[in-house]
Amino acid sequence: MVTDLLPAKNGEEYTMQFLLEVVDILTNYVRKTFDRSTKVLDFHHPHQLLEGMEGFSLELCDQPESLEQILVDCRDTLKYGVRTGHPRFFNQLSSGLDIIGLAGEWLTSTANTNMFTYEIAPVFVLMEQLTLKKMREIIGWPNGEGDGIFSPGGAISNMYSVMVARYKHYPEVKIKGMTAAPRLVLFTSEHSHYSIKKASAVLGFGTENLILLRTDESTSDFYCACYLVKWFCCVSAVQGFVPVFVNATAGSTVYGAFDPINEIADICEKYSMWLHVDGAWGGGLLMSRKHRHKLNGIERANSVTWNPHKMMGVPLQCSAILVREKGLLQGCNSMCAGYLFQPDKQYDVTYDTGDKAIQCGRHVDIFKFWLMWKSKGTIGFEKHIDRCLELSEYLYHKIKNREGYEMVAPKIKAMMMECGTTMVGYQPQGDKVNFFRMVISNPAVTRSDIDFLIDEIERLGQDL
Amino acid sequence: MVTDLLPAKNGEEYTMQFLLEVVDILTNYVRKTFDRSTKVLDFHHPHQLLEGMEGFSLELCDQPESLEQILVDCRDTLKYGVRTGHPRFFNQLSSGLDIIGLAGEWLTSTANTNMFTYEIAPVFVLMEQLTLKKMREIIGWPNGEGDGIFSPGGAISNMYSVMVARYKHYPEVKIKGMTAAPRLVLFTSEHSHYSIKKASAVLGFGTENLILLRTDESTSDFYCACYLVKWFCCVSAVQGFVPVFVNATAGSTVYGAFDPINEIADICEKYSMWLHVDGAWGGGLLMSRKHRHKLNGIERANSVTWNPHKMMGVPLQCSAILVREKGLLQGCNSMCAGYLFQPDKQYDVTYDTGDKAIQCGRHVDIFKFWLMWKSKGTIGFEKHIDRCLELSEYLYHKIKNREGYEMVAPKIKAMMMECGTTMVGYQPQGDKVNFFRMVISNPAVTRSDIDFLIDEIERLGQDL
Ligand SMILES: Cc1ncc(COP(=O)(O)O)c(C=O)c1O
Ligand SMILES: Cc1ncc(COP(=O)(O)O)c(C=O)c1O
Repeated sequence: MVTDLLPAKNGEEYTMQFLLEVVDILTNYVRKTFDRSTKVLDFHHPHQLLEGMEGFSLELCDQPESLEQILVDCRDTLKYGVRTGHPRFFNQLSSGLDIIGLAGEWLTSTANTNMFTYEIAPVFVLMEQLTLKKMREIIGWPNGEGDGIFSPGGAISNMYSVMVARYKHYPEVKIKGMTAAPRLVLFTSEHSHYSIKKASAVLGFGTENLILLRTDESTSDFYCACYLVKWFCCVSAVQGFVPVFVNATAGSTVYGAFDPINEIADICEKYSMWLHVDGAWGGGLLMSRKHRHKLNGIERANSVTWNPHKMMGVPLQCSAILVREKGLLQGCNSMCAGYLFQPDKQYDVTYDTGDKAIQCGRHVDIFKFWLMWKSKGTIGFEKHIDRCLELSEYLYHKIKNREGYEMVAPKIKAMMMECGTTMVGYQPQGDKVNFFRMVISNPAVTRSDIDFLIDEIERLGQDL
Repeated sequence: MVTDLLPAKNGEEYTMQFLLEVVDILTNYVRKTFDRSTKVLDFHHPHQLLEGMEGFSLELCDQPESLEQILVDCRDTLKYGVRTGHPRFFNQLSSGLDIIGLAGEWLTSTANTNMFTYEIAPVFVLMEQLTLKKMREIIGWPNGEGDGIFSPGGAISNMYSVMVARYKHYPEVKIKGMTAAPRLVLFTSEHSHYSIKKASAVLGFGTENLILLRTDESTSDFYCACYLVKWFCCVSAVQGFVPVFVNATAGSTVYGAFDPINEIADICEKYSMWLHVDGAWGGGLLMSRKHRHKLNGIERANSVTWNPHKMMGVPLQCSAILVREKGLLQGCNSMCAGYLFQPDKQYDVTYDTGDKAIQCGRHVDIFKFWLMWKSKGTIGFEKHIDRCLELSEYLYHKIKNREGYEMVAPKIKAMMMECGTTMVGYQPQGDKVNFFRMVISNPAVTRSDIDFLIDEIERLGQDL
């Protein structure tokens, strides 16, 4: 048994064989993921998995395990996991398993490089640059000008937006700290993602200086711009308070609602506040000629978060922060690290992106997205988005008139997990009781899966 | 030509075939990576790649490309990239291509899930928990108690340490912002990684409130603890300045030097400052009974950054922040998002890690590391570390007495890139001229590769 995996002559062949056996496990898994007769998950409680299942222990030891056992570990890891690509997994904003995207991610891991310099990631750095430009064109910024970077998720992208806004208004904070600025106030809606609140804590604004604006469910415009004006006036009337940043959500996490960007932009322009659009979830609609009107006005935003890893079905992680004004990301984050960013390199160093980031090493998130775009074309993404929205329409009409569809309860969720046939998230919101949050972004979902879900919830509910 | 990649009956078979063809490309690439007769890179300038190479264009189009073309794109992406796993790639702190780690990353992408809840990543969440505990045991914290999380890189891990230190000393900053605290001062050495400086900017401390301590090259202890005391006294004598945080580097980015943790810990304990150890690079030495003494005192740290993706050869990204006191990460970052972290779930929700993180979605970075640990055992990592240190000894002795080894120049680097036979980074430091920074962490490197590098630098230098 060869367990020494250094690439010695024989070891090399052996490990390649091992890799191919893993591929076999993985392709089997992929096949089953699309097979509706398999369960979405095989639920076990933490203590069960911790105690160890037959032949599968999570414990780490001093001595190496055999490659046979490693293969078993791989198989079991998948067995006790959740099939997020299963057509009946509706639990999270990220779902589906795009084969091209998957191939892209496998290639990325094989290339195993870092995004900070052109030197060690020439192709990926350029792909990122071109793709970001394309995204800015789609947003509607003239000639796709501006800046941007891929970050490890929408929460971090939103954090970038607050940082860049602060740098634009109070560049001295970078050197002198928050005490150099007046008390800065941020606005967002009560339905916005909690990452805006996290950003206000992390960056030193303090969560109490983030104002959560009430929303208005009676209008289709979810976020009432008039609340923003009222609050703006209140806040700026107080000595020493300066409103600087407004977040508008384009596709809210729970309801998928869209804030009226144009109305908010009017106010931001009038009062010189930074406008960020959090399109982590809804940004994908920009690819659809039919639905992009929901984001009308987005070209007036100063920055945009857009997560291809949500509605567009790109594998995790893939999130972009896009900024209209060039140079701010660099200005805000650059620390001029000599060991990475030598100005005397032999190539054009403006391609070195590392100093724009809050990270040093940065994972290659671009390739899978670029490859999917190549393979689907822009129109392929458009079709996908249109299909998701059509399916949610379908769902809406089906349950609207169906009886029994109010008894939403955590107990159904628990039974659903035990059964493992489908998976959908639930949560309370404000003074509402727990309800199911249905997410459609997986291209493998069909009307019959929606029908299945509706029946399943009813069936589980009846057993209560 | 089937280009519709939705998992329809025939499409399914077709895409699986496609995936296997990609695997073929990847395994060929892996084989060649270990073959010393292949180049490390095939250098092209940005404008050359942007103009498009034969049959390979980076541009994104409206219309889909054929799967054949996608395969070509995959091949060319690798062709024009850098072989970071090549035994003659010494350019970055992350290098090597561990086959088990690679298999782990392929599985991770196939599982395509998110770390925030036990619900959708039961196995991975538990693996993370067990592995972090093991790392804390190795650090030397009693019973491996404490807390931690994997983050998207050492820079973010270091940022966590500063955040947690702030929360420990001034918890009100979370709600009220930095203006609620006095002027907080941070210390680190001039040779520490620039991410500490980034963190001071991002979190609102301001870079001028980070004091870069002089180092002393005449002693083996790189960072002179006496400077810390002097500065502490200076700073705290000024009204309103409060020193709170000290970073000690365990394995500095450029020299691989180790700060004297015990001496620094004495001062931190005496003056109630948070001690963070940045072991992003050198943390791996903890696995070696022979070399871990360089980190003596690390068990006295309040937090530790440790990047398995550097010296331990785990594929990118894999970085942990470990915290001695439990509850701080949660206290510092929790925002209680109802849609993810429902307290009325049917399982033990203390396993849901999302609210400890500054991220929302979080990539699964644990599996490849866990799998490598399983396959090598703790002793396998120890062997690897010992070997890396032995090779750097070898290099040191070889060039010490060799003539001509002072004419370090960027021009040699440029020629090296054009030749593509080996790759090593260079930078200036302080008032020193540019010099090569030699990094050894790839298990595939042998003495002959070191010999090759030395000869190659000389050969290229002679052509000047
Ligand atoms: C509107 C919105 N913004 C931001 C995020 C955070 O994105 P990520 O999970 O990629 O950090 C989410 C996640 O659900 C979201 O729904
Ligand atoms: C000492 C040290 N700390 C932190 C980092 C940052 O690590 P990462 O690139 O994973 O963000 C580095 C990277 O080189 C480093 O050398």
